[in-house]
Amino acid sequence: MPTPERRTTKPIGVALLGLGNVGGGVVKLLRDNAAAIEARLGAQIEVRAIVVRDPDKADRVIEIDRALLTTDLDAAIARPDIGIVCELIGGTTDAKHVVLAALAAGKHVVTANKALLAEHWAEVFGAAERAGADLYYEAAVCGGVPIIRALREGLASDRVEALHGIVNGTSNYILSTMAASRRPFTDILREAQALGYAEADPRLDIGGGDAAHKLAVLANLCFGTTVDVAAIATDGIDAIEPIDLDYAERFGYVIKPLAIARDHGGAIEARVHPALVPASWLLARVAGAKNAVYVNSYALGPSMYYGAGAGMLPTAMAVVSDMIEIGRNMFARAAGAPRPPARVATPRAMVPLAEIRTRYYLRFGVADQPGVLGQLMTVLGAHGVSIAQVVQDTGRGAEPEEKVTVVVLTHTAREGDVRAALAEIEHLAVVRAPPRVIRIASEGSP
Amino acid sequence: MPTPERRTTKPIGVALLGLGNVGGGVVKLLRDNAAAIEARLGAQIEVRAIVVRDPDKADRVIEIDRALLTTDLDAAIARPDIGIVCELIGGTTDAKHVVLAALAAGKHVVTANKALLAEHWAEVFGAAERAGADLYYEAAVCGGVPIIRALREGLASDRVEALHGIVNGTSNYILSTMAASRRPFTDILREAQALGYAEADPRLDIGGGDAAHKLAVLANLCFGTTVDVAAIATDGIDAIEPIDLDYAERFGYVIKPLAIARDHGGAIEARVHPALVPASWLLARVAGAKNAVYVNSYALGPSMYYGAGAGMLPTAMAVVSDMIEIGRNMFARAAGAPRPPARVATPRAMVPLAEIRTRYYLRFGVADQPGVLGQLMTVLGAHGVSIAQVVQDTGRGAEPEEKVTVVVLTHTAREGDVRAALAEIEHLAVVRAPPRVIRIASEGSP
Repeated sequence: MPTPERRTTKPIGVALLGLGNVGGGVVKLLRDNAAAIEARLGAQIEVRAIVVRDPDKADRVIEIDRALLTTDLDAAIARPDIGIVCELIGGTTDAKHVVLAALAAGKHVVTANKALLAEHWAEVFGAAERAGADLYYEAAVCGGVPIIRALREGLASDRVEALHGIVNGTSNYILSTMAASRRPFTDILREAQALGYAEADPRLDIGGGDAAHKLAVLANLCFGTTVDVAAIATDGIDAIEPIDLDYAERFGYVIKPLAIARDHGGAIEARVHPALVPASWLLARVAGAKNAVYVNSYALGPSMYYGAGAGMLPTAMAVVSDMIEIGRNMFARAAGAPRPPARVATPRAMVPLAEIRTRYYLRFGVADQPGVLGQLMTVLGAHGVSIAQVVQDTGRGAEPEEKVTVVVLTHTAREGDVRAALAEIEHLAVVRAPPRVIRIASEGSP
Repeated sequence: MPTPERRTTKPIGVALLGLGNVGGGVVKLLRDNAAAIEARLGAQIEVRAIVVRDPDKADRVIEIDRALLTTDLDAAIARPDIGIVCELIGGTTDAKHVVLAALAAGKHVVTANKALLAEHWAEVFGAAERAGADLYYEAAVCGGVPIIRALREGLASDRVEALHGIVNGTSNYILSTMAASRRPFTDILREAQALGYAEADPRLDIGGGDAAHKLAVLANLCFGTTVDVAAIATDGIDAIEPIDLDYAERFGYVIKPLAIARDHGGAIEARVHPALVPASWLLARVAGAKNAVYVNSYALGPSMYYGAGAGMLPTAMAVVSDMIEIGRNMFARAAGAPRPPARVATPRAMVPLAEIRTRYYLRFGVADQPGVLGQLMTVLGAHGVSIAQVVQDTGRGAEPEEKVTVVVLTHTAREGDVRAALAEIEHLAVVRAPPRVIRIASEGSP
């Protein structure tokens, strides 16, 4: 009986570009789990260069051998003993330059940069394909949650039909805290900024731009296309008021920041917005800064992937797991194995926002006089928007002049029809404030 | 600018052993998603032989070319045009024989057989290692949920500390239905059998044996060891009564069928039993026949993987995704690439059941007389079992002679101490029925 031979190949050299939180986490994880990683890969992964702006900067997140630090990006990329370049710079200008340069130099690339991938998907993957190099990006969506791997390999034989994701931890943290405390959005945001849970400039998080980038990456991967990020309908969470959480709860919902994509065959639907989700749905229970993606696929049906969407070690874990997989590919390729063929992206249209069909939560602040409800219903009905539930309360409006609050949950309706009805309703004399609209999502949505 | 070359390699031949539900699903999925699978792998996957007991059997789950069917197992395995053998026979006798024979013949193997893996882990993986062949088993645990892939590749750079899984759909269905209806266990089981949700012989499901097999597979994978299945403490769900669901709810818990494993460094803790879980925990919301595994790992922290744990297409999806991954490996290996080294399993002790530490729900049926509560508390206290909450109700016992029901939730205690206290309590004159014990689990358990 032959004893299995233990092959340990020579170390794989890595250049880290950027040494912030995630970069520090990568160094720490490679150190702490070195033996386990070597056992899994059959080789060590060695950080051989770390490109930083200022090598003399004090208070790094982790202790680093000063000799590894360099400011010379091009030299680091060009080193023949570097196999994997790990881009942790962020942004789309410098990051794009270095990723393209690394690929052109025949290096494999790991990136956590969703903005770069979302905005330049075809270009960077085209460059990887031409160079015969790998481009891995598990950390770009949902931090450490292995959602990219689940979709790419776990569901390799399946066909994704739709996904609903909570992919921005800051937005989820703010809405979760608002739901627990019923304090106003701005208070909670200020507190989150003081605690470091939200950026000084929180617009990309709370405005939905970050989620739109992640959604584009997920949609491109699942649907084999290239989504135009600018065409993703994106609403932030800043218009949500505590009163909306009250009404949502009354109807059996919670409000979550969702990123939604659906394959309509000919066209792709993609949108980012806060949504009412049924309290019984698993996504409703994804609280705090946690992320989750709920996937509907042809064979598996519903599945969900949950965990930390940010943070030093979770994100670094995804980056290092990508390095291990690239390491395996490198050994295969060194032996002359063919790469899996590139999946040709088929351009597909986006479903225009006016054409999407879902259910709606509508909140109106109206005058306290007879016949108001009838006027609202008449306009909605005239636009083909059919009503599932209505409540009318006196004295609950956010503003004093909104004497009466009317909340309507619609049946499935066309967005364009809802918007046309609301435009008309806004001009009714009895309506005292712009109507508030929140879309409703559910497991079987619309 | 060179155009990327599209390489399509010759088809990969598969022999299916068994053509039940899952086998039929594999054939269907390979047909329905043929183009997508070829695009991902760069080759077709072709079923070239299906080994069945009776080729003339009518009413197959799917229409099959009669020429593919054979009864000659050995011939099918030996065919040079078969690269992957897919074992869907079940059981551990014939299945073990054919898996070892296939590996010895240099074939790669996909199996959905948790019993085989749990009971013969070292032997079958040893055989795969010696043969230089792949042995994949995504479908063996949680059906289509890509939990094996998530743990093996997604968390490749991480270190799993503990996992809590709902890995038996039948048990989860029964407890979920019991929670919703408060009808007795036996009624719901009978109904589940009539509906086909439970086997005619349900012992492996409701007794916890199936979950213990899956837990052994997960523990072996995560902790790099070989767990003795027979040493996994296993309680079924059949002792749960509707009254326990009432009390659980009153204290803010639901009852779920859990499989729990934890790495204590020197030793491994592994147990299968129904448990009270806090209603706010994500696992509490995994209802019906669905499966989920909640993982705690060093870098990522908590993460969860949820979906269909059984069913024709979900399970087939996992099997075909394994075939795709093996196909990639085959191309790499054909080119001479080294295999990743085998992870050497380190034998580790199991934590004896008496030594586990967790919280407990204890229900006592006692006589309606003064001082009873004091007697119970005194015995528990004498054994070092400290009490977190107590309720005492008159007239709620399951049996008429249990005049008074006392329910105790303990703080974290040693199982051996709890059992010793209960043995003593059972002999108190005031105690009218054997005490009921359900362990409590939580996100931060114990």
